[in-house]
Amino acid sequence: MTDAAQPEALVSAADGGDPRALARLISLVENGSPQLRSVMKLIAPRTGQARVIGLTGAPGVGKSTVTGAVVRAYRNRGLRVGVLAVDPTSPFTGGALLGDRVRMQDHATDSGVFIRSMASRGHLGGLSWAAPQALRILDAAGFQVVLIETVGVGQAEVEIASLADTTMVIVAPGMGDSVQAAKAGILEIADIFVVNKNDRPSAQEAIRDLRAMLAMARYSDGAWKPPIVPVSAMRGDGIDDLVARLDAHGEWLNASGERDRKRLARARDEISAMAVATLRERIGALPGEARLEELAAQVASGKLDPYSAADELIG
Amino acid sequence: MTDAAQPEALVSAADGGDPRALARLISLVENGSPQLRSVMKLIAPRTGQARVIGLTGAPGVGKSTVTGAVVRAYRNRGLRVGVLAVDPTSPFTGGALLGDRVRMQDHATDSGVFIRSMASRGHLGGLSWAAPQALRILDAAGFQVVLIETVGVGQAEVEIASLADTTMVIVAPGMGDSVQAAKAGILEIADIFVVNKNDRPSAQEAIRDLRAMLAMARYSDGAWKPPIVPVSAMRGDGIDDLVARLDAHGEWLNASGERDRKRLARARDEISAMAVATLRERIGALPGEARLEELAAQVASGKLDPYSAADELIG
Repeated sequence: MTDAAQPEALVSAADGGDPRALARLISLVENGSPQLRSVMKLIAPRTGQARVIGLTGAPGVGKSTVTGAVVRAYRNRGLRVGVLAVDPTSPFTGGALLGDRVRMQDHATDSGVFIRSMASRGHLGGLSWAAPQALRILDAAGFQVVLIETVGVGQAEVEIASLADTTMVIVAPGMGDSVQAAKAGILEIADIFVVNKNDRPSAQEAIRDLRAMLAMARYSDGAWKPPIVPVSAMRGDGIDDLVARLDAHGEWLNASGERDRKRLARARDEISAMAVATLRERIGALPGEARLEELAAQVASGKLDPYSAADELIG
Repeated sequence: MTDAAQPEALVSAADGGDPRALARLISLVENGSPQLRSVMKLIAPRTGQARVIGLTGAPGVGKSTVTGAVVRAYRNRGLRVGVLAVDPTSPFTGGALLGDRVRMQDHATDSGVFIRSMASRGHLGGLSWAAPQALRILDAAGFQVVLIETVGVGQAEVEIASLADTTMVIVAPGMGDSVQAAKAGILEIADIFVVNKNDRPSAQEAIRDLRAMLAMARYSDGAWKPPIVPVSAMRGDGIDDLVARLDAHGEWLNASGERDRKRLARARDEISAMAVATLRERIGALPGEARLEELAAQVASGKLDPYSAADELIG
């Protein structure tokens, strides 16, 4: 009866840093378990402490290596660090992403580090529903820093940025020019640009392109201007500077009141996502799959439009 | 009173191929107009005819150039072609994506081609709600082929694939290796792999990598095995072969019964997305923004968990 462990027992073990209890709690999130409701009630008073840092960038720029280097830097300060690696793509890729985690094996025996991959199960809204809950679990378990790493560029990144206090966008030389990165909408979410693999000859070009693009942006008084930080995460070059920039952004968040504003916005998003998920569940539960099949056949054959079908579905 | 045009008049003008009427109808979708309801009722009987082809791939692989070449090939057959360029990222990037459309200017004066960019307005669910409706409009207006092009890799691509009868995944040499592409979850959605820029020296390497990866996949009897088609869309090389592969996939869809299955699944997704959007609207309308603000403050301070807050919000 391993699945029937009491939420109370799991929460208290996780609070003591038990990695198996943490893993179990996050599996509850992935599976959308009904036990989550009591878990979330229990941990609510302990949340709001962790510093949340998002990492994003196109495949191949070295996100996992940067994550590993940043984890090491915070561990050297004695902070407990949680890592959520979120895969916004199809459920099929869970394995591939996990392969990446191998690079972080040097933290595998460190009880001050907890690393977990999460797939969004291909459901739209899956990520927006699950990631904040996993974050709450790590936050309540006393991880002072939580890194959220996500793959690819697109809508999921924008969501990750809305979860994080500070978002790092990683680029690498030779992975398509930076103007392409701008097109993908990640410029707007970056608090810090990290140019990884700075030992490559074309790194200077990437930095120059980013700089030119940032020069075109307009900032209001007191706004944060994203720095460009060249690193070689593999060699450990530039990581001290990167962490200093993370600290500087943290201070700016506090001084500007932006941290509170972000956290309020995050809570709003979380409640809305939860409300939509609840309503979606009710749709699923209401008229039964068979009715949806009938309506779908009518829509596919042009007998009915999707609005009228949706109205019939939800009554 | 340009906004007060009767849905009937717009639909009948769009059916005659009037690009301004089409643009107006798609703007109704982008703006979530209440008039859409009558539009969708009017056009339902005329839908289900268009062949829907999805194009996706990382930024910089040349999606727009491939789209342009495929449009030209179908135009040469005398077919009317609609293009929806969907940007799943933040609303800020609309302009950047539109810049790309410049490459398709050679179709600008051809009344048998209609090209439209759509942003998803940053709402989660925006794309899954809006793209199928825009597709319905083009379908009902008599475009025999509709190409849906989307930027980036991630969840949005999986959704586009669920909209399309046939999905092409475009890769290009030197844009990160194909194993990285696999990681991004696009392998599973590809019916056809297009290796663009085949005149580059590293194209053979990209083809070899893709081939090796496909060799590891298992296919059941009668399943479609995605071909790898090298092209140079800029020079027009390989486009005839690509269109022949598109035709072959179309025939397979018919023979296998897969087309009907896909269309039924699409209708199901559409109805569900519409039902969720309707319920989401009701949330917005129900307890007012002020109540959500209060609840968010309680969640942010740890006084309340998001489940209980969502319950209070929807009652």
